[in-house]
Amino acid sequence: MARFNVGIFGATGAVGKELIKVLADRKFPVGTLRLFASERSEGKSIDTPFGAITVENANEVDFTGLDVCLFAIGGGWPTEFAPKAVAAGAYVIDNSSTFRYDPKVPLVIPEINSDAIGKSLLIANPNCTTAIAIIPLEVIRKHFGLKTVIMSTYQAASGAGAEGMDELLAETRNVLSGKKAGNSVFAHPLPFNVIPHIDVFLENGYTKEEMKVVWETRKILDLPDLAVSSTCVRIPVLRAHSEAITVETEKSVDIAELKKFLANTQMVELVDDPAAGKYPMPLNATGKYPVEVGRIRQSLVFKERGIDFFVSGDQLLRGAALNAVLIAEALIHAGKLVPRGTK
Amino acid sequence: MARFNVGIFGATGAVGKELIKVLADRKFPVGTLRLFASERSEGKSIDTPFGAITVENANEVDFTGLDVCLFAIGGGWPTEFAPKAVAAGAYVIDNSSTFRYDPKVPLVIPEINSDAIGKSLLIANPNCTTAIAIIPLEVIRKHFGLKTVIMSTYQAASGAGAEGMDELLAETRNVLSGKKAGNSVFAHPLPFNVIPHIDVFLENGYTKEEMKVVWETRKILDLPDLAVSSTCVRIPVLRAHSEAITVETEKSVDIAELKKFLANTQMVELVDDPAAGKYPMPLNATGKYPVEVGRIRQSLVFKERGIDFFVSGDQLLRGAALNAVLIAEALIHAGKLVPRGTK
Repeated sequence: MARFNVGIFGATGAVGKELIKVLADRKFPVGTLRLFASERSEGKSIDTPFGAITVENANEVDFTGLDVCLFAIGGGWPTEFAPKAVAAGAYVIDNSSTFRYDPKVPLVIPEINSDAIGKSLLIANPNCTTAIAIIPLEVIRKHFGLKTVIMSTYQAASGAGAEGMDELLAETRNVLSGKKAGNSVFAHPLPFNVIPHIDVFLENGYTKEEMKVVWETRKILDLPDLAVSSTCVRIPVLRAHSEAITVETEKSVDIAELKKFLANTQMVELVDDPAAGKYPMPLNATGKYPVEVGRIRQSLVFKERGIDFFVSGDQLLRGAALNAVLIAEALIHAGKLVPRGTK
Repeated sequence: MARFNVGIFGATGAVGKELIKVLADRKFPVGTLRLFASERSEGKSIDTPFGAITVENANEVDFTGLDVCLFAIGGGWPTEFAPKAVAAGAYVIDNSSTFRYDPKVPLVIPEINSDAIGKSLLIANPNCTTAIAIIPLEVIRKHFGLKTVIMSTYQAASGAGAEGMDELLAETRNVLSGKKAGNSVFAHPLPFNVIPHIDVFLENGYTKEEMKVVWETRKILDLPDLAVSSTCVRIPVLRAHSEAITVETEKSVDIAELKKFLANTQMVELVDDPAAGKYPMPLNATGKYPVEVGRIRQSLVFKERGIDFFVSGDQLLRGAALNAVLIAEALIHAGKLVPRGTK
């Protein structure tokens, strides 16, 4: 069986660590795994299911010999290094927002638009908030048609990386010992608070995070005129995002039928038995591949052409690492990712 | 100046304690203050700004001589005791949901429908979630007309009383010391979690809390056909509720004008300067009378006839104790609450 040389960039971060675990857990055919991070971590040895690996400096990478590069570094880094990786013939799956809105770069949720891959060596991994909502939205689109999506989010600290989770825990300890909570990662102290501010504010009064939901939902579903709005809110949860979603559909919705469709959808776990206290929650969605979907009911506003539902999904998995690995798997499945010699 | 004999029922609970503070803080003309609670607290002396008061047994109350009874006891208690208080000629302001949907009982936010008071000695205090959203909604209704309201909530532990707040703190301590969080007040452990389940589930798939928002918004605004939907969610915050609200209006909305209207509205604090990191948050709304309103922007779904905004308000104050005291003040102002001898 063909094996591939994989590079993880940002390997010491929250997403990077999950990428290593997911590659192992899904038995991805790794030949050699190389780990890259900032200078700070250079030379550090990391124990992985693929053996102990010494971290290399991402700023001095030579892409020669790498088949797949999983990028989990933000800022200006992908802008500089993605073209170099592509020039070296490697597939790049980039977790940042850098290339997501470039019409030449596919933005991929493999379960939805895997036909978009392989047109470009560079592939963008969607924003976590979009990734967690999009599979149930696609199920609704397919069966009932999508007209309008209104979303309010309950986003975990992990969206700001390992530092975000560390800050939430450390500052919660401070509050519980009677001190005032501080903040450096988040705009305000997060413990026992709610911050309706993720990413920067844009001119229209929405944050970039909120607009990402709009732009990416439209691009992935290939519905450029879909009416979408969202309010993105950080709350004191560690690593699973939840979302309350109201949709208006083209056709009448049979709620029981929709539940059946969702129950039969890969990477969706229907958790919808309120009488038994079962609905999506971060407590259960954390560490899990499928996104929990529940609280499915007819919209009181859009009536028979509308649905209200609730989702909860692991931000670091479906929202990042898992989706990236699923894209790499889809590349193999589509015959796009082949050992170098056979290209 | 006329003074009134006030009874607080449920005086040892989270709302009861705030009622004592608010009466003092607003210099309500209290003649005698009597405190009532369950048998458990009977005989206990409580230091108040009105002196030390010995708690009486609410189940053995004689209402004679009481002018205003502030009820903050749930379960079947109000059903039994409200008629007795009314029969004794006292005004009853009831914080429970028992009488809210009775067409003969006014449901009052004094800033909105104080004309409804005085028709009945029994007056219902709205659900906290509705109370926190309703003043900005009334401002929108007045100036632009209200067609649709879609709300997702971020509700604090205090909605479940002092026990709710205690459980959140105690169980968060457990999590931080490596133990598993437990739960008895909430349906699931609340620390670092999100629970889309407040009050009981009804046949239509909505919770009673969600339907309260529908029923009470319609009743207070006197818009019986208003399209309203909500998703009510408990999150790990202590005592301020937040809400993400999308509205569709009858007329085009000028966002700058709306902000001006809100800035000039009593009991609303416009907190809407995102560039300066200013928007509604529990961290700042806690302990404050006005509801914070911000993140005001044109809806991407309803365009010029729609608004997205965010509110945060103290659940125990605007959502309960403050509103009850404001109702009592409005009764005096309207000449309805007068000293017994002068009736």
